[in-house]
Amino acid sequence: MELPKSIQMAIGQLSKIPGIGERTATRHVLGLLSWEPSQLGELSSAIKNLAYLKECEHCNMMSDHEICEICYNESRLQSEVLCVVETLSDCLAIERSNQFQGSYFILGGVLNPLLGVGPDELKIPKLIELVKNYHKKTVILALNPSVEGDATCSYIKDLLPSDVETDRIGFGIPMGGTLEFLDAQTISKALENRKRM
Amino acid sequence: MELPKSIQMAIGQLSKIPGIGERTATRHVLGLLSWEPSQLGELSSAIKNLAYLKECEHCNMMSDHEICEICYNESRLQSEVLCVVETLSDCLAIERSNQFQGSYFILGGVLNPLLGVGPDELKIPKLIELVKNYHKKTVILALNPSVEGDATCSYIKDLLPSDVETDRIGFGIPMGGTLEFLDAQTISKALENRKRM
Repeated sequence: MELPKSIQMAIGQLSKIPGIGERTATRHVLGLLSWEPSQLGELSSAIKNLAYLKECEHCNMMSDHEICEICYNESRLQSEVLCVVETLSDCLAIERSNQFQGSYFILGGVLNPLLGVGPDELKIPKLIELVKNYHKKTVILALNPSVEGDATCSYIKDLLPSDVETDRIGFGIPMGGTLEFLDAQTISKALENRKRM
Repeated sequence: MELPKSIQMAIGQLSKIPGIGERTATRHVLGLLSWEPSQLGELSSAIKNLAYLKECEHCNMMSDHEICEICYNESRLQSEVLCVVETLSDCLAIERSNQFQGSYFILGGVLNPLLGVGPDELKIPKLIELVKNYHKKTVILALNPSVEGDATCSYIKDLLPSDVETDRIGFGIPMGGTLEFLDAQTISKALENRKRM
């Protein structure tokens, strides 16, 4: 037996979401079948409304407005410290730590010439302009550790005005981590980044 | 920082799907942000269209039409054997075995007085009528083994005409299963259901 066309369509669409395979999508869609039409409508329009999100004109954060909540806060926008991250999720992770009160810039990825991601795709010129216009004194490069991430950091550092302090986010043993189970690279970074007590 | 309202709405809606928690929903929605508006529209309308599915007038299967694909096949609808299952997914599982050529009846659950699920919620009167109208000779009760499932089977058996053969689907060791790791109840069922070679 073949499943009804509308169920197959929904499974096909749901399984396009990264992390949802065909089996999971089938399970979800069969679950959705017991929903009221109004509930399906709400889910459906919530998804559709994602298309109306805008990129913040300062930091590229997704927002319902032209300017995101963080940049709307003058004290944060004018802060002397700027944190550069790859994605919105990285920004959320840093916000969760409640440790950073400056502004962000979301690159949207890292330089990757093989995949055709160059400085313009990442809006690096916009970043440099932001640093100059808002007289940022410190830029924290919070890109993930990887060959591409490291290369992107070096590239950005070279373009930034020389009086701007450029920091890379610290690498080392994560809280709750145990030396026994950590990889050699993390441990060598942790030794390198040791701090006088 | 708070996430934009439209993202929060989408996360809230997605996490209503059983099996998707808030963290998974957040990951999915952040993934959806990189989709084109047209792709979001397709996913959104595929979900909305689920509301237009109908229940097959014979077997209660979800279908795009008044009559489902299986009941539309006269030879299956008129077959002498009827298989009663709890849900659409159970029906699909049996169809995957390619072993059954009769028709189905989807109960939509099992009797559960505590949750207010009685014979009418399960359309048991409709089942009895179907068995009589289509002169079914054998009814296979393929409900899952549980206290409620067993009770529902006994209840249905008592209502069926006495000349109808009523079978419960076989319980025992699953293919590829090993006695060592199976629970005592399965093993006792398997011993009970042993078959002369």
